[in-house]
Amino acid sequence: MAPASKFTTPGSSRRVLRGELEVPVREVTLTNGERLDLYDTAGPQGNDVSVGLPPLRRPWVQARGHDPVCNTQMHYARKGMITREMEFVAVREQVTPAFVRDEIASGRAVLPSNVNHPESEPMVIGRNFLVKVNANIGNSAVSSSIDEEVEKLTWSVKWGADTVMDLSTGNNIHQTREAIIRNSPVPIGTVPIYQALEKVKGRPERLDLSVFLETLHEQAEQGVDYFTIHAGVRLRYIPMTARRLTGIVSRGGSIMAKWCLHHHKENFLYEHFDEISKLLARYDVAYSLGDGLRPGCIKDANDEAQFAELATLGELTRVAWDRDVQVIIEGPGHVPIHKIKENMDEQLRLCHGAPFYTLGPLTTDIAPGYDHITSAIGAAIIGSHGTAMLCYVTPKEHLGLPDKEDVKQGMIAYKIAAHAADLAKGHPGAQDRDDALSKARFEFRWEDQFNLAMDPEIARQYHDATLPADGAKTAHFCSMCGPKFCSMEITQQIRASLQEPEEGMAAKSREFAAQGGEIYVEGAK
Amino acid sequence: MAPASKFTTPGSSRRVLRGELEVPVREVTLTNGERLDLYDTAGPQGNDVSVGLPPLRRPWVQARGHDPVCNTQMHYARKGMITREMEFVAVREQVTPAFVRDEIASGRAVLPSNVNHPESEPMVIGRNFLVKVNANIGNSAVSSSIDEEVEKLTWSVKWGADTVMDLSTGNNIHQTREAIIRNSPVPIGTVPIYQALEKVKGRPERLDLSVFLETLHEQAEQGVDYFTIHAGVRLRYIPMTARRLTGIVSRGGSIMAKWCLHHHKENFLYEHFDEISKLLARYDVAYSLGDGLRPGCIKDANDEAQFAELATLGELTRVAWDRDVQVIIEGPGHVPIHKIKENMDEQLRLCHGAPFYTLGPLTTDIAPGYDHITSAIGAAIIGSHGTAMLCYVTPKEHLGLPDKEDVKQGMIAYKIAAHAADLAKGHPGAQDRDDALSKARFEFRWEDQFNLAMDPEIARQYHDATLPADGAKTAHFCSMCGPKFCSMEITQQIRASLQEPEEGMAAKSREFAAQGGEIYVEGAK
Repeated sequence: MAPASKFTTPGSSRRVLRGELEVPVREVTLTNGERLDLYDTAGPQGNDVSVGLPPLRRPWVQARGHDPVCNTQMHYARKGMITREMEFVAVREQVTPAFVRDEIASGRAVLPSNVNHPESEPMVIGRNFLVKVNANIGNSAVSSSIDEEVEKLTWSVKWGADTVMDLSTGNNIHQTREAIIRNSPVPIGTVPIYQALEKVKGRPERLDLSVFLETLHEQAEQGVDYFTIHAGVRLRYIPMTARRLTGIVSRGGSIMAKWCLHHHKENFLYEHFDEISKLLARYDVAYSLGDGLRPGCIKDANDEAQFAELATLGELTRVAWDRDVQVIIEGPGHVPIHKIKENMDEQLRLCHGAPFYTLGPLTTDIAPGYDHITSAIGAAIIGSHGTAMLCYVTPKEHLGLPDKEDVKQGMIAYKIAAHAADLAKGHPGAQDRDDALSKARFEFRWEDQFNLAMDPEIARQYHDATLPADGAKTAHFCSMCGPKFCSMEITQQIRASLQEPEEGMAAKSREFAAQGGEIYVEGAK
Repeated sequence: MAPASKFTTPGSSRRVLRGELEVPVREVTLTNGERLDLYDTAGPQGNDVSVGLPPLRRPWVQARGHDPVCNTQMHYARKGMITREMEFVAVREQVTPAFVRDEIASGRAVLPSNVNHPESEPMVIGRNFLVKVNANIGNSAVSSSIDEEVEKLTWSVKWGADTVMDLSTGNNIHQTREAIIRNSPVPIGTVPIYQALEKVKGRPERLDLSVFLETLHEQAEQGVDYFTIHAGVRLRYIPMTARRLTGIVSRGGSIMAKWCLHHHKENFLYEHFDEISKLLARYDVAYSLGDGLRPGCIKDANDEAQFAELATLGELTRVAWDRDVQVIIEGPGHVPIHKIKENMDEQLRLCHGAPFYTLGPLTTDIAPGYDHITSAIGAAIIGSHGTAMLCYVTPKEHLGLPDKEDVKQGMIAYKIAAHAADLAKGHPGAQDRDDALSKARFEFRWEDQFNLAMDPEIARQYHDATLPADGAKTAHFCSMCGPKFCSMEITQQIRASLQEPEEGMAAKSREFAAQGGEIYVEGAK
């Protein structure tokens, strides 16, 4: 197997805070001597894919010992314990370990951490923490290989994925997942019904609890950190979808709906939810309660079927919490802007504060090829209302399987949405990077502007498209306005004339005065 | 000069409604025999650039005669007249001509229509109409030619630009503008201070009323439909910007600020606003009152300087309206999500209902290279609150002059934002296209899904990347999930089993039953 691609980010290096815990940050070094530490998801670099990442958490898990019944972070939190994982995320989120513990104990936050995935660097999902982004990867029967999927994983975390879901449905589903988990510094989620369906030759009606539990056991042993389970698709809700414009659009939801109708029985995942919870408790696999009846178009948003299922997910949350199993609630889908807030309000009301995890939502149906944008709009809005994790959407949504470039485009759109939501929520420290970049922009420190950007390579490339010369990197203008119309440059003169030079500006002002303070420069260098 | 590029949109043709008025629509013909008319801004196709477009409005303007004082649509509206232009936009917006007239008379809507730009197809800007998008083009001293700018104009309107601003600051500023206006089917806006500054060799302090009026006269004669004028940058507001992180970021704002400080006098545009209004009234050039003190970063959003200027823009609106001059108010800039609504609320309160026209706003500063996305988020939100027109931002914002591909990317992000806002406002008919596309998606009419998309070429290209065969265009799956996991396909079976086949689905259901109703298909065709 090929080694994982090693990547670097210009002006940045991975650094570890508080040696004992090895909490990673990406440190950006600026030309003015300042530096900024950024949250880092990329993990250790350059490992052999066939060996996998170092098992960071193994000693912590071993030290706690294995309880045959329950080993969840929620369990420890409720006993008042602060685990190493909680300490780790407290450093990452710049809060106290006790706060992390209390949020997990109450169910308001989830720390996905299968005891069999020691390679993961702990992270936390909850409305009182930074908004997280999940990247979906995985092959289908039509496309993609194991190497490609590990490459997409590595690529996803480079661009900031906080968790990754392996949605493989094709061949080599077990081996693909194994390669992904062993090489993943972030929690891995799956939708186990996909593999269970493979085991019954693609016939939903042949599914049963036994094959499902066997699948969960197999995946939990491998180290999957959270399972999407569509236990809320109850028999009596299915007819509510019949008059929808696009019916059921969740793969797992449609599989379970077909099972229910074929047998004219209640969803066996709902019926046996407590038994499933017992299995998850042993490994500390979290539930991501799937929204099998989410709306698949603007017209179907916020309808009876969607909210009926959401109420059931709230009911199941209580069942899981009784076993100390951690729970996230999945949300839509396609929702117009004016109906987004109701989703967050109802989720809070019905699901007792469990973290909300939404796919977008897409705010219009008319732009296939650009659904990373239609949905980043909805994601930023619902994130600002308190959604804890955003599942990215790539430009290929509705059209095909995303490739590496699609993964990047989806990730960037969603890191923008998540960060915009963090700013809107007033998350402590979130604005530091905006302020640092804007200060660099105002002071014409182009290199710093590039290196602080979400995508330093593209920022530099776009600037250099018209002004490639090295001299332009210190020029007091760009090609957008040219030298004589640069408002930032004129403002610097204004500020100087108001005799209020601020920190860092005094030198520039003197430099300008020395040059005659002219704004008209013939031609551009 | 090269002929304008002629473009076609797959599955679409330009059609004219109500022959006498020649109101254009883009008609999309679907494979199921249905068709959908879409709002069309592309204008007549394939004209010789050196000749320009046919002068559609000339007979209407001539029939009204030329009044030496005032020829504005607001003037006619207040006299109770319904002009041909008002009838035209009533057809486009699917409202009554009387409603259009009343909105214009009240100042809540603007119909930009310089008597010397007869080539334009009338459109209306107001909170009770469809949300509009402006595209900025124009060369700078560093980059670009006249042919390139006309090409960008044609490209902008292909992708749905409702107005275009020519922000040229380089050489050939007059000739570039002439070529753009003669070939533009949409209203053209400019920032006249840029050319006035060229006339005084780039020295802001040498600007005066005389050179400014001369510039306005020259541009009004050419046919510019609206002028951005920074009359709200008052002397006493300038010190308010001194402690900002990024000071003044508007080019026009910084030029006027420099003038004010140099002379220690009040802004001459503010002092002589009524005289300027008289000139605009004669040609029916609308004001776009510039926000010279808009925030240029998240930290500076919604500050004292910004809202002080906004109050002055409200004061100036009254002065303009006293002369029946139409007014739009420009808005920010960079604003975090939680501060966006206050911008709309204050604009409504201070500016007496005049249409709001915002640049974005960008909801974070940290993604140069992707500011079409950071700002489309803000644009969709502020549009849903009632902003009438959105000024697009391209991926090159802050980095360089946009090229043709950047113009397209900016336009698409903003058409998405505008449409998402139309849906949120419940604009009549706005959802028809979403519903038609989603229905096509659910019924696996891939060709219709592509042709109804905002960018049919890209939608098709992304689909074909993994499933290029013609057979895949009627297949009941795509490469995202593969044949056995397609939820839409399973839902169709569920719907059939519920014995509630709906319009258009009955045939598909029968077809499926005939095939055995199997969801497992070996391999993909």
